[in-house]
Parts: sequence; C-alpha cells; structure tokens
Amino acid sequence: MSGSRIYMDWNATAPLSSEARAACLFALDLVGNPSSVHGEGRAVRTLIENARRDVADLCGAKAASVIFTSGATEAANLVLTPDFRMGRTPLKIAHLYASAIEHPAVREGGRFPREAVSEIPVTSTGVVDLPVLRDLLAGHDRALGLPMVAVMLVNNETGIIQPIAEIADIVRAHGGILVVDAVQAAGRIPLAIEELGADFLILSSHKIGGPKGAGALVARGEVMMPVPLIRGGGQEKGHRSGTENPIAIAGFAAAARKVGKDVTGRMAPITAARDRLEGAMLSAAAGVVIHGRDVSRVGNTTFFTLPGLKAETGQIAFDLEGVALSAGSACSSGKVGQSHVLVAMGYDPRQGALRISIGETTTPAEIERCAAAFAKIAARRRASGQAA
Amino acid sequence: MSGSRIYMDWNATAPLSSEARAACLFALDLVGNPSSVHGEGRAVRTLIENARRDVADLCGAKAASVIFTSGATEAANLVLTPDFRMGRTPLKIAHLYASAIEHPAVREGGRFPREAVSEIPVTSTGVVDLPVLRDLLAGHDRALGLPMVAVMLVNNETGIIQPIAEIADIVRAHGGILVVDAVQAAGRIPLAIEELGADFLILSSHKIGGPKGAGALVARGEVMMPVPLIRGGGQEKGHRSGTENPIAIAGFAAAARKVGKDVTGRMAPITAARDRLEGAMLSAAAGVVIHGRDVSRVGNTTFFTLPGLKAETGQIAFDLEGVALSAGSACSSGKVGQSHVLVAMGYDPRQGALRISIGETTTPAEIERCAAAFAKIAARRRASGQAA
Repeated sequence: MSGSRIYMDWNATAPLSSEARAACLFALDLVGNPSSVHGEGRAVRTLIENARRDVADLCGAKAASVIFTSGATEAANLVLTPDFRMGRTPLKIAHLYASAIEHPAVREGGRFPREAVSEIPVTSTGVVDLPVLRDLLAGHDRALGLPMVAVMLVNNETGIIQPIAEIADIVRAHGGILVVDAVQAAGRIPLAIEELGADFLILSSHKIGGPKGAGALVARGEVMMPVPLIRGGGQEKGHRSGTENPIAIAGFAAAARKVGKDVTGRMAPITAARDRLEGAMLSAAAGVVIHGRDVSRVGNTTFFTLPGLKAETGQIAFDLEGVALSAGSACSSGKVGQSHVLVAMGYDPRQGALRISIGETTTPAEIERCAAAFAKIAARRRASGQAA
Repeated sequence: MSGSRIYMDWNATAPLSSEARAACLFALDLVGNPSSVHGEGRAVRTLIENARRDVADLCGAKAASVIFTSGATEAANLVLTPDFRMGRTPLKIAHLYASAIEHPAVREGGRFPREAVSEIPVTSTGVVDLPVLRDLLAGHDRALGLPMVAVMLVNNETGIIQPIAEIADIVRAHGGILVVDAVQAAGRIPLAIEELGADFLILSSHKIGGPKGAGALVARGEVMMPVPLIRGGGQEKGHRSGTENPIAIAGFAAAARKVGKDVTGRMAPITAARDRLEGAMLSAAAGVVIHGRDVSRVGNTTFFTLPGLKAETGQIAFDLEGVALSAGSACSSGKVGQSHVLVAMGYDPRQGALRISIGETTTPAEIERCAAAFAKIAARRRASGQAA
C-alpha cells in the first residue's frame, strides 16, 4: 500500500464532478412532484426541462427528442424492441444486428426474442467488420420488418472508436434503424447525432461525471419511436412513465454542460497523461500488449494484457497497491467473466486483460504511481515466472 | 398570499426527511461502481446491501426478496407480466384483475396485453367489491394460466385502506398471485408482507421521505419471479439490470428506517392534525363532502369535494393562497384529468375533488392557515354562487 487510493476506473463510473455535485444538492432541496401543477411542482418541472436542453446540446439533438431514463441500460431496453410506432401506426422491426463488442445492456437484445438477434463480428483490430455487416443486411428479409443495427461509438473495454458514419450509410441503404450506444463517447470525442447518422443515441450520466440513476434515449426525429417499456402516469410524453428523478437528472445535465464544451481541448491533457503511462508500461515490461493501440481510440483508456498475469489476479494486485482498475467491464455483481470483447477480437480470453481508465482529475503523480505499481507487479510476475 | 408556502401534497411526493438527506449526501461522495471488485466498488456494494435490509425490514420481508428499481412505476411494470418463472421453469399468467382505483402504473397493466386486463369494481365506499372479485376468479380459466390480482393497500387519492388480507384469502383459494401496491401505505399503517398475504409488494422511496429515483419490488418468496423487464449486466441477481442508484437507494433506506419505527405512534399527531382540519372544513362550509370519511383511511389524507368548486379551479385558488395541494394524483405532465377513483366510487367526476395530504413536519399553524384558506375560498364560492 502506498498512501491514498488512486481511482483509475472512470469507464466503470466517473467521479462526480463538482458541477454535477452542486446541481444534485440544489435538486435535493426542491420539494414537489414535477407532474404537480402547483408552484412546487412547476419548479421541479422547469429544472427537468432545462436539463433536457443541456443533454440535447451534448449530442446536437433537439430537446424534444430526449427521453430521460434511469440509466443507459433502461434506455437500451426501451429502444431495442421489435415494436415501434410511426405516429400511431405500428411499425415492425424484424431483427436486431448487434456488434459482438456491445455492452451486455445491448447484447442481451432488450425486448427482442433471442432468435431475432444476430451478432456482427469485429476484425482483430476491434472494429466492426463492415463487409460482413453489408452481407447481413443484404440477406435481411424486409418483408418481415425493418432491420435494426446496434453498434457502440466507443467500446467500454478497449476505448476503440467505431466508424459509425460509415455504418450509418450502410444501414440507411438497407432501410434500417441505427442505434448507437454513446455512453463511453460522450465528453471524450465530439458527438453530433446528425453527423453520425444515428437514429438513436444512448447516454449515461455517471460515465460523464454525473450521478448514477439517470440516462437518456435521444432520437434523431420524433416520428418513429419505440413502444414504451415502462407504462403508467404518462411522463416523458408517454415514452417513459414514472416520476422523474430530479437529483440525477440535474446532475446529469450539469455534467453534460461541462463535458460538452471543447471536448478536444479538455481531452488533450488526459490523452497526454494516458500516453505517458503507456510509454512507461511498455518500457517496464517486454511483451505487454496494449489492445487497440494502432487504431482510433479515446484518450483516457488503456486496455492491456501482461503475459502470464491473469486479469483477475492482476486486478487484485493493483487494488492492493492502491490502484482501482478493472478487468473488463463492471457488470453483474462482483463477477469477473471472460471478456467478450477480447473473444470477438480473436484473442485468447482466458488470460484476459486489464483496463485503466482515467479522467480530468487524474494527476501526474497518480500516473507515476500507477506506472510504478505496474512495474512492481510486472517484475514480481517475471520473478515468479522464472522460478516456475 | 399569506407568507411562506404550505406544502400539503405529501401523497404526490413527501419532502425529503433530514435522515434521508444525510444518507443521500453520504452516498453522493462515494466513488465506485457497486459491481466493481476493487475497494471503491465494494464500499458502494455494502451500502446497497445494507439498504436492502432496511427496506426489507419496512415490510417484514427477507433482504434477498427486495429488488431495487428506479421507482414504483418500474416495479409495477416488472411484476405485471404474463411471463413468470418458477426457478427456471416458465410459468404463464393468463389474466390480470386490477382494481378500478389502482394508480395508472398498475391500471396500464404493465406487460399484459390490454385484452388480458380486467377491472375489479369498488363499492361506493371506495373499497374493492369482494363478491365481484370472487365471481371474476371463479370464472377464470386456469387452463390458460394463473390469475394475477392487483389491489393497492391504500388509495393515493382517498387514503382508503383496502381489505388486503381478505382479498389474499380469495386469491389464494383460486391459486392466483396477489400484487399489492403499498406505496401510500408504507410508514402510514403497519406493513407486513406475510400478514397481508401478498405475493409481491410495490414500494416507493419518495412517498415516504426518501428521494425520487428509487423503488422496490418485494417478493414474499424467491421461487416464483417475473421475467426481467430490464436486461443487461445482471444486477439485482438478474432481476433488474443497470448500475444501481446508490444516492436514491441510500436515501430510500434511511427513510424506510425512520418511518418503519412505531408507525402508530408517529401517525397519531398527524391524524389528530388532519382531523382538526376536517372539523374546521366541515364547520366552514355546509355541503363539503369528505370522501371515505366513514371507512378505514390513513391518517394524513383528506379528499374532499366542495359543491360548486371545480377541482382544477380549487387547486389554483389554494395555490394562490400559498397552499400546495392536488386535484387527484400527479401523474402525467401537468394534466388534471378526471379522477378515475371518483368514477369508480360512483361520484360525478366532472366537479372532481381536491386532496390535502400532510406529514410529520406539518405544523399546527399550517393546519390553521389551510383551514382559513379553505374558509376564504368557500365563502367566495358561496358569494359568487348567490350572485349567479
């Protein structure tokens, strides 16, 4: 152990930013149900509608196209459904084509039956295999209903950026609907729903410095919408019932306002810190593999394999050194499973990989301490390997 | 206007209690995803598992039987489904029988198709019509699947308490599943899932002094469970995926701890204050009808009709007098619809009714000011009625 803890698991959940914290505190002390017509209710309604504009601005959408949910997983389950409506007319989606590296919230297929979900493979570089996507959609029988394609903009484990605009062209050519999980992209790369050509974006508050408990489904238009997942009081224009969560929504909006400004400038020092760390790691241990280093990645993520170090063991070793990082994604309770992302990229998943993910409050001293922890763990591994 | 505002809409949402506020603040500053295995993640996991025990204690359930959701509406949509499992074996529910006075979150029927939902009428006293329920279940064809019955323990508009234990006997005799919305009952009357004989309870944080954004589905056992509504990372033992909301859950638990203790003693002064207010109202205006006054009601709610005063107009008049109260339930955005509860009780819903709902921070001075506002509005109404 070496003093205070170092949190390097921002892709699992980012620390609450001071701006988001202040917004949460403000909302905490508002009495009133946003659906109530009295003054107390209207004050909360105003807060939520202002937040809607902030979240829309984060991805260049219209405020009216933002549906607040309890998080990205709920947003995914809302949009991934065979049952859509064009206005009031039912619209059938026959099949979901989801990339092999999607988050479980998308891979599970939402409301599609299992047999109506197919996987789009990725190449060894971790990027969606576009020719295969073309073939899949060419083979889709539109008589049964439209195809839906789900590809994430930035992978949560590797940080690899997917060619969404190209994918959107392919999907459009086949008359399909494109759903883009932008959870790990927001605040890390510029985000504009029109330029991406996505029909729907999925966003999460707690990955961008907001609190847990809020997410959004953002539509490009308002005409073609999924049948509601949660029905009841008719909130969110009927798309998502249930009293809104003003604390989480206010924090989400504050985080969105903050990370939405000058993404490139804000990411530059983070990327430089990450690159310094990777340089130190590559010097400290021959054979360390940094996944996705040769392709386009977000600047805060390092997904690496140190030969001979199992991910689960490595994670505990770093934790004991005071460094919180992750073996793949943090999904079900405390379970460290094999990385489906590594499998999809053709790596042997048994050894696994570790993910370091940082953010704007990560300090140079923390980068140095993490590099030192890595060197120590790598040296110990080498010694035990030679002894064996 | 007469000084500071008086909040008398606790059934729409209760003010955050100081205990819940402190718990939210504590959770706000915890970094870490509860599914992460490092120290930061485990700290949040501990908070959530402690909260689960507190919420279980509120209704005499086992901690393992509590599924946290984003709120009561989501919990209702989770449990109201034709698709259940007994362990891994599918179990079909053929039909939902829901009382005519249920909250829209239940009335909408969750995942049941419309044709598989029937209404159980209530008598003019606002209580579920038990002979009709018996007939409905006697006519249910079990070959198609089990019947599910949904009856709320306390109605949100009238405060009337339903005879759940009797209903449970009827449902059990027909091999059905009983779902009880206990949102307005928690903290106001003693709550014990075993004594009620409910198979599932629905709870909400923000109706008991916790923050908005958390609710729970509580099962009596763990064997027979609904197919998940939200799929993905496998949180909540697979019953509800998505990163948990520690801020809301911690506040929910603190509120549950507080209101769960000595419910009868805590409610006594609230009931006395409500009765004083009703006495003043009955003296001030001949003809005022207090709905449900002759049956068993919770002690914080007054649902009344003042002849000649439309609910929508009355609500605005009280708002201008500084009193926040409600015309029925606060559901969809700012819309004041006809009360389906009044309709079910056989009243003319066109005039509607107003709901005053108070809580433990309501002061005697506020009761007096509310009574004075009522007298003023009633006198004005009388004057304009005589003029017309």
